Amino acid sequence: MAIESSNETKREAPIRLGMVGGGAGAFIGAVHRIAARIDGQFQLVAGALSSTPDKAKASGLELGLDPERTYSDFREMAIRESERSDGIEAVAIVTPNHVHYAAAKEFLERGIHVICDKPLTSTLDDARALQALVEKSDALFVLTHNYTGYPMVRQARAMVEEGAIGAVRLVQMEYPQDWLTEAVEKSGSKQAGWRTDPAQSGAGGSTGDIGTHAYNLGCFVSGLELDELAADLDSFVEGRALDDNAHVMMRFKEKDGVRAKGLLWCSQVAPGNENGLQLRVYGTKGGLEWTQKDPNYLWYTPFGEPKRLITRAGAGAGPAAARVTRTPSGHPEGYLEGFANIYMEAARAIQAARNGVAVDADVIYPTIEDGMKGMLFVDACVQSSKQNGAWVKV
Amino acid sequence: MAIESSNETKREAPIRLGMVGGGAGAFIGAVHRIAARIDGQFQLVAGALSSTPDKAKASGLELGLDPERTYSDFREMAIRESERSDGIEAVAIVTPNHVHYAAAKEFLERGIHVICDKPLTSTLDDARALQALVEKSDALFVLTHNYTGYPMVRQARAMVEEGAIGAVRLVQMEYPQDWLTEAVEKSGSKQAGWRTDPAQSGAGGSTGDIGTHAYNLGCFVSGLELDELAADLDSFVEGRALDDNAHVMMRFKEKDGVRAKGLLWCSQVAPGNENGLQLRVYGTKGGLEWTQKDPNYLWYTPFGEPKRLITRAGAGAGPAAARVTRTPSGHPEGYLEGFANIYMEAARAIQAARNGVAVDADVIYPTIEDGMKGMLFVDACVQSSKQNGAWVKV
Amino acid sequence: MAIESSNETKREAPIRLGMVGGGAGAFIGAVHRIAARIDGQFQLVAGALSSTPDKAKASGLELGLDPERTYSDFREMAIRESERSDGIEAVAIVTPNHVHYAAAKEFLERGIHVICDKPLTSTLDDARALQALVEKSDALFVLTHNYTGYPMVRQARAMVEEGAIGAVRLVQMEYPQDWLTEAVEKSGSKQAGWRTDPAQSGAGGSTGDIGTHAYNLGCFVSGLELDELAADLDSFVEGRALDDNAHVMMRFKEKDGVRAKGLLWCSQVAPGNENGLQLRVYGTKGGLEWTQKDPNYLWYTPFGEPKRLITRAGAGAGPAAARVTRTPSGHPEGYLEGFANIYMEAARAIQAARNGVAVDADVIYPTIEDGMKGMLFVDACVQSSKQNGAWVKV
Amino acid sequence: MAIESSNETKREAPIRLGMVGGGAGAFIGAVHRIAARIDGQFQLVAGALSSTPDKAKASGLELGLDPERTYSDFREMAIRESERSDGIEAVAIVTPNHVHYAAAKEFLERGIHVICDKPLTSTLDDARALQALVEKSDALFVLTHNYTGYPMVRQARAMVEEGAIGAVRLVQMEYPQDWLTEAVEKSGSKQAGWRTDPAQSGAGGSTGDIGTHAYNLGCFVSGLELDELAADLDSFVEGRALDDNAHVMMRFKEKDGVRAKGLLWCSQVAPGNENGLQLRVYGTKGGLEWTQKDPNYLWYTPFGEPKRLITRAGAGAGPAAARVTRTPSGHPEGYLEGFANIYMEAARAIQAARNGVAVDADVIYPTIEDGMKGMLFVDACVQSSKQNGAWVKV
Repeated sequence: MAIESSNETKREAPIRLGMVGGGAGAFIGAVHRIAARIDGQFQLVAGALSSTPDKAKASGLELGLDPERTYSDFREMAIRESERSDGIEAVAIVTPNHVHYAAAKEFLERGIHVICDKPLTSTLDDARALQALVEKSDALFVLTHNYTGYPMVRQARAMVEEGAIGAVRLVQMEYPQDWLTEAVEKSGSKQAGWRTDPAQSGAGGSTGDIGTHAYNLGCFVSGLELDELAADLDSFVEGRALDDNAHVMMRFKEKDGVRAKGLLWCSQVAPGNENGLQLRVYGTKGGLEWTQKDPNYLWYTPFGEPKRLITRAGAGAGPAAARVTRTPSGHPEGYLEGFANIYMEAARAIQAARNGVAVDADVIYPTIEDGMKGMLFVDACVQSSKQNGAWVKV
Repeated sequence: MAIESSNETKREAPIRLGMVGGGAGAFIGAVHRIAARIDGQFQLVAGALSSTPDKAKASGLELGLDPERTYSDFREMAIRESERSDGIEAVAIVTPNHVHYAAAKEFLERGIHVICDKPLTSTLDDARALQALVEKSDALFVLTHNYTGYPMVRQARAMVEEGAIGAVRLVQMEYPQDWLTEAVEKSGSKQAGWRTDPAQSGAGGSTGDIGTHAYNLGCFVSGLELDELAADLDSFVEGRALDDNAHVMMRFKEKDGVRAKGLLWCSQVAPGNENGLQLRVYGTKGGLEWTQKDPNYLWYTPFGEPKRLITRAGAGAGPAAARVTRTPSGHPEGYLEGFANIYMEAARAIQAARNGVAVDADVIYPTIEDGMKGMLFVDACVQSSKQNGAWVKV
Repeated sequence: MAIESSNETKREAPIRLGMVGGGAGAFIGAVHRIAARIDGQFQLVAGALSSTPDKAKASGLELGLDPERTYSDFREMAIRESERSDGIEAVAIVTPNHVHYAAAKEFLERGIHVICDKPLTSTLDDARALQALVEKSDALFVLTHNYTGYPMVRQARAMVEEGAIGAVRLVQMEYPQDWLTEAVEKSGSKQAGWRTDPAQSGAGGSTGDIGTHAYNLGCFVSGLELDELAADLDSFVEGRALDDNAHVMMRFKEKDGVRAKGLLWCSQVAPGNENGLQLRVYGTKGGLEWTQKDPNYLWYTPFGEPKRLITRAGAGAGPAAARVTRTPSGHPEGYLEGFANIYMEAARAIQAARNGVAVDADVIYPTIEDGMKGMLFVDACVQSSKQNGAWVKV
Repeated sequence: MAIESSNETKREAPIRLGMVGGGAGAFIGAVHRIAARIDGQFQLVAGALSSTPDKAKASGLELGLDPERTYSDFREMAIRESERSDGIEAVAIVTPNHVHYAAAKEFLERGIHVICDKPLTSTLDDARALQALVEKSDALFVLTHNYTGYPMVRQARAMVEEGAIGAVRLVQMEYPQDWLTEAVEKSGSKQAGWRTDPAQSGAGGSTGDIGTHAYNLGCFVSGLELDELAADLDSFVEGRALDDNAHVMMRFKEKDGVRAKGLLWCSQVAPGNENGLQLRVYGTKGGLEWTQKDPNYLWYTPFGEPKRLITRAGAGAGPAAARVTRTPSGHPEGYLEGFANIYMEAARAIQAARNGVAVDADVIYPTIEDGMKGMLFVDACVQSSKQNGAWVKV
């Protein structure tokens, strides 16, 4: 038995990690750092934490980085680190979206693995260029669609695959928030500022920031491919350039003889909702329901039988959940553990690459393809909405 | 203080009630009878409970009706009862949809008040003809969109009216069920049989049976008028003639400077959902959330403050809820009480008519207009879906 | 198939019912009247609704009673009604506790069936005298421990009987309220007034008013008999003469080789609790959990398997629930329906008596024995608490 | 703003940590290691992970420890590490209870800070000896009553302190589990084995393992001191030497003019309960309710107002929660984050000691006194139960 319950592979030297973005005031940078630390598989050794030199330096100090390896320019970091014998093996990119491509490029071209926040990029062109780069690079590209790291999401996916709910008919996704109910971007919120700015975020507001998560989750669990969608996007807050609410109808490609349908709702203006990500999948033989608010539970209804509450590490949970589980049932795991599971999977893939062996078949992480799908989803939403909700193929 | 808590008006003789439909094997007829009994305002004295004479007779006997007033033909009942000095004052019509119009006509033309199950009729033509009849009749017409009878639904409506959530931006409605997941209409379920038969139900399947309820509820609480919708309807079960799932995007008419949007999902093929009616309304200043599963609770979030749980008869519940409440907080009321509240309101209106006085301003019940809206909703859903989800004005 | 779903017996003339207590301002009287009306098995024809003549008269008028059959003295009512050929067959006693015995006596001695609110009486002596009366009377005595009327409580009892959870080890009961958190009895609350007055309520405050309900429920479902208890009672509100909070440890008599233990908590001073009745029963093979807040659900865990949510009228619910169910699954039933089920069971027993036939074996209602158990429970609590929580046999 | 949201103090060199216990097959050792890693404040550099040399060695290798610093004897580790200039500054003791004292002694006497799992020791004598050692040592002693690390538990404590619920009247604690429903200790479960063995666990079974947690939580939040208790302990599983279920009535010392009462239920034989720790505290002005199942929520009812749902990092949560929070509201944190908060507080205290400065006043962690209280609680439970539930002073 491995010591760290199911999460420990045979101990190797930690992966040397750098970070682009994530200086003072950032939210997601801190999340990546914790996720990288939880299982001890990574060690943060370098950073271009800010493009403002003073801030980059201060942030590096605060994180205990060697001042020599604290950069204010990610390109310089890529060059210098790739020259060191103890240089970083992987980099986490946690900047606003418009920087993802340029940063990823520098590292991929130098064979440094990239763990990149979503959405992939701020433009489709960048996304396509990045895809081309990834395809010809030996380095790995991991996108942090972190919700796929939740054990009960893994469990749901495995159950759909195994036929527990029969052929899928319906995929209902939602991700409501309320933090942009008012025009906080005008009163100095840095998070709100870049997320509502097309130049930094891209064409999608709520669709890009959270709709992509919900869509990724729906596909991940259902195993379906989207065919076309019809979307109605709004910017309810006056003067806001990007959508803050989206209603989307979906038609998936036929599978198992059924052409499934879906609904996706994402919103940043729904008071009372914090991060209300929810997924419900219904098939010919049963239904599955999961919500981030109670992430350790999965509701499963075999049609005609009582609903069952499957719990992480409890009765009814299988190996797909177990391999990303750290604590016994009834001791709740949360967002950071789910995020850490993406890092754990990345570590397994990177260690396999380091050792020149094939990665285990059960390692799952979101890839450049998932990133492209998210970009095409946002693009289709925007196109459809501009065409008054016409169906748009993705 | 009235004896029956808030629900008692000064006691008058009970209203003499007849019933069309509702014989053995029916579900909704029994519900209407209980609803009529709970507050003692009605007395069932006549019935055309079935068009099959033997069954009509047996059903009448079982309900303790005078055999002389047990009919197998609703027209005969209308004629005979209108001739009696102790004839029925009101009739409940609880047949499959395609009979609503013909039955209602006979009673309305004879000045007998009609309490009719929804949807209004099976065809738009019938609906329009019925509307014309109601307009020229002195008799009242009450449609049992029963969910508007729930105290916390009344509370929600009052709070929206009072501005508790500001200008409404979003109205999210859903009503998932699972009982038609398989083709039970082919294996002898009487309920499934007529509900999936266009000749008896009309053009809408799930849209007519439950979608109209969700739509009515959304309008009732939000106070908004629908402008147009885009719908994607499915009949997932092979050979089913009517929709068993509908995805609908909505655009409401502008109010308070906002053009609100909505999503409506109704389904009869979502395993694990019994009668999962849910309404969420979000505005510029707050949100309200209600579900039939927990009908005694209303979640209210003033934006920027903690969510509050308003309970029926508890702190935070106001007069709109109190006047349709029978028991103290913490003693749950349910579907039958909500349904009875429609009957109670009908009784108040009928008693006012009986006494030639104006009905109290706070009496609320669904009318022929609500019925027409439901018919137009179903029609628009069907038209939009036929046009590949194009926006259709209602 | 019976018309009123499972709840209709072959229609007979309604049972002629009288009522003692329940005039203006009462809570439980109105509840009894609704419960008696829901299934149409009773007709209220006489009342001694108040001992104040004017109030009795006004209350009778408001309920539409014949003024001749509106009494201000229950003894007079018993005499006069027993002399009429159309006199009452049954009487509902809904006064404060200290009147139960005297009133019940008058009717039982004249062969009139008694449906009595709980607790049985205000003193043990009265209770014993009443028990003796019931034993020698031909009339029936039904105690409205109404929570045993909930379908999922019936379901739970049936499952325990069938061995679904093995031998019972633990019975955890609680009934917290908050309405007596402050000294409302001093500011004119009539309900609070008599319930905190030993002369009207008896020796128990929270123990008598709600503790008896929780205890009755625990015994009803578990099938166990209490052996002894240790109690710690408090009157947290200054000047209150009766307990407003009770902590009770219980030891049941051995059954199936196990001597089960229990905890009971009842409180009227727990802010945030309305009528939080809850029961949890655990055995060697599984557990059952039910709460009045969600009365249509029963949680069942077969040990080592996922929790299952059994719903009223849904998959997993058996005949014990079905026979006291009126609406389909997902349409919540509540407190009044549960209460009405006691009246329905009483009607079946009274009709059997009327017809001189044996009552069906599946008819269940709380009896004088249950009432005695409740009295002995209160007495034991009070005795134990006076002896500093010593174990007291019941 | 600190980079790691509120959790980062100015970065210092990580604290060099050793571990006693926690080899292969252990549960709590892995939890301690993750907790120590999450915020990057500790670095595990040495271990006596097992007393079996081969297992100790293998475990050390797997964790990436220097083989020179992998010991099979904690005494040897204490001696050798205290001689190194880079020796451990702190040690985590995660063995079965009976080893806590002997291990802690070796490190405390050498000035090495101790972070020890609970309960404190296996005997009262050991506990008293340990207390004496701690009092005369310069090293810190931190007990991992980890549930006090949950942000909403901190929030609850702060609210009680600030008077949000007035004077406390009731403290209701429970911690049900089901994993010992059957005699798994006889079929090779290592966890079950030592936890049901008096020689390794001490006098308390469920009382020691989980009852101490519930009791600690109740005192932590309520701010009350226990005066006396009456307990009824059971070993429901045949042949089990220690209690697997406990019912406890409590009387607290007077505070704010009120002598509060409490109930505590802990169980390892309640099927359907995983780690169902729950706390409810009621006072003269309101109530607070928290459960580990939904650790990011705190229910707060100001008496006479609607219940409010306070969420971690959401509206209504104050600084006491914020300082132990890592992610935005709606992104659930769990057990590991709560545990890590104890380590974070320990780090702050150790760093203060390292720098010779006073620790910040807002640093909170469980101490030797909390450990003694837990021991006295278990002892009182056992004594009371032996005396047939008599009240025993603690």
